[in-house]
Amino acid sequence: MKLLALDSSGLVASAAIVEDDVTIAEYTINYKKTHSQTLLPMLEELRRMTELDLHTIDAIAIAAGPGSFTGLRIGSATAKGLGLALDIPIIPVPTVDALAYNFYGREQLICPIMDARRNQVYTGLYEFRTGAEIGSGYDLCIVKKQCVVEVAQIVEQINELAQASDSEKEVIFLGDGVSVYRDKIAELIKVKYSFAPACCNRQRASCVAALGVILYKNGVRQSAAEHAPDYLRLSQAERERAEKG
Amino acid sequence: MKLLALDSSGLVASAAIVEDDVTIAEYTINYKKTHSQTLLPMLEELRRMTELDLHTIDAIAIAAGPGSFTGLRIGSATAKGLGLALDIPIIPVPTVDALAYNFYGREQLICPIMDARRNQVYTGLYEFRTGAEIGSGYDLCIVKKQCVVEVAQIVEQINELAQASDSEKEVIFLGDGVSVYRDKIAELIKVKYSFAPACCNRQRASCVAALGVILYKNGVRQSAAEHAPDYLRLSQAERERAEKG
Repeated sequence: MKLLALDSSGLVASAAIVEDDVTIAEYTINYKKTHSQTLLPMLEELRRMTELDLHTIDAIAIAAGPGSFTGLRIGSATAKGLGLALDIPIIPVPTVDALAYNFYGREQLICPIMDARRNQVYTGLYEFRTGAEIGSGYDLCIVKKQCVVEVAQIVEQINELAQASDSEKEVIFLGDGVSVYRDKIAELIKVKYSFAPACCNRQRASCVAALGVILYKNGVRQSAAEHAPDYLRLSQAERERAEKG
Repeated sequence: MKLLALDSSGLVASAAIVEDDVTIAEYTINYKKTHSQTLLPMLEELRRMTELDLHTIDAIAIAAGPGSFTGLRIGSATAKGLGLALDIPIIPVPTVDALAYNFYGREQLICPIMDARRNQVYTGLYEFRTGAEIGSGYDLCIVKKQCVVEVAQIVEQINELAQASDSEKEVIFLGDGVSVYRDKIAELIKVKYSFAPACCNRQRASCVAALGVILYKNGVRQSAAEHAPDYLRLSQAERERAEKG
């Protein structure tokens, strides 16, 4: 199975082509240009470099939210256009789950944190567990589903989990929210923790693809017409309209 | 600290620009083109996309071997040329250690396997351990240093480690040697194991960079003139000459 994967949910723009268990190409930029300037040129660069016939792609995995509203729209619009033109399905991958996939095989807690502005973060809690058979791989287990909260709330939840359990789990934080909330986390947390290094602390399209393959096999797919990002909260315009009653 | 990182030790060509704990750009290709066709154009693409002034780079981290002899020479020659022109040091990063860095934070065993032809693999055994302090990160611990052996030997070593220890450690395999030796591993291994998925089973330059930063802080650096790859074994020509006496 050959997948094209895209993630433009945050400051990072990332595109990957993945076939079965091999990443044929991955290109990630974390720079001040907007995704409308980067995403399609990056995809075209990958296509050219790997002599890819787009018609050999079976599905498009997209980081489907939460994230920057504009970023999600650019990613989803690109995926919808490609999906329509190529007549292939879209696999909507929860953004925070895909971030956690940076730590595939880690049995301790994983806490992605994306800065959601307005004193909130997009976050969740995850761990990987192996299957029963000797050669089976790891499953992503969702301890707390992706959500939008204040950073204090997710740290409190981590503290409570540690209290409730006999064996304390160390937690690793990643994502663009870490640089914003590093001091706050250090102040509030009561379990052993660390922050992820540069190679595994941001969105990567190959993570979206690896998780996308599993979701696809579990029947998760949409037509290009059906697909829409999952913002997890109202946009500023919708919020202001609601406040006005 | 800003690093340029390169890995062309295997079938993969990968380049990254990393500043402190953020990957500004990463580009990885696993395609049939040779590294002499891909590595410099990829680097130029990253430079252009991130408007990078090469003179702001502090050091070049390079996957310094083992690996494909031609691949290593192309990577090292590129690093040496850049290092000389920019008058900055080269950080030689052991290839197999950098591969293990895909699993940063994993406390169970990590076994990278690169196909070395002639029935041998470049391999090693690793795990990550946290420091004593509550907020400290993980250190890469080398259980068995990178080496060139038959795949049966490294699997036997894993089996022996499990026998000698009370708590059996699960092992995860990654690298281009997995597709070659998957059945052999399954046949010989006596501990719980799995194979890494597409997002974390090959060389990535950001892993070379993340480990490179740590090596640099520990004083590991060479001048462009000093640097040479570490092949770990003799080339075919050297071997044949030695056999002739």
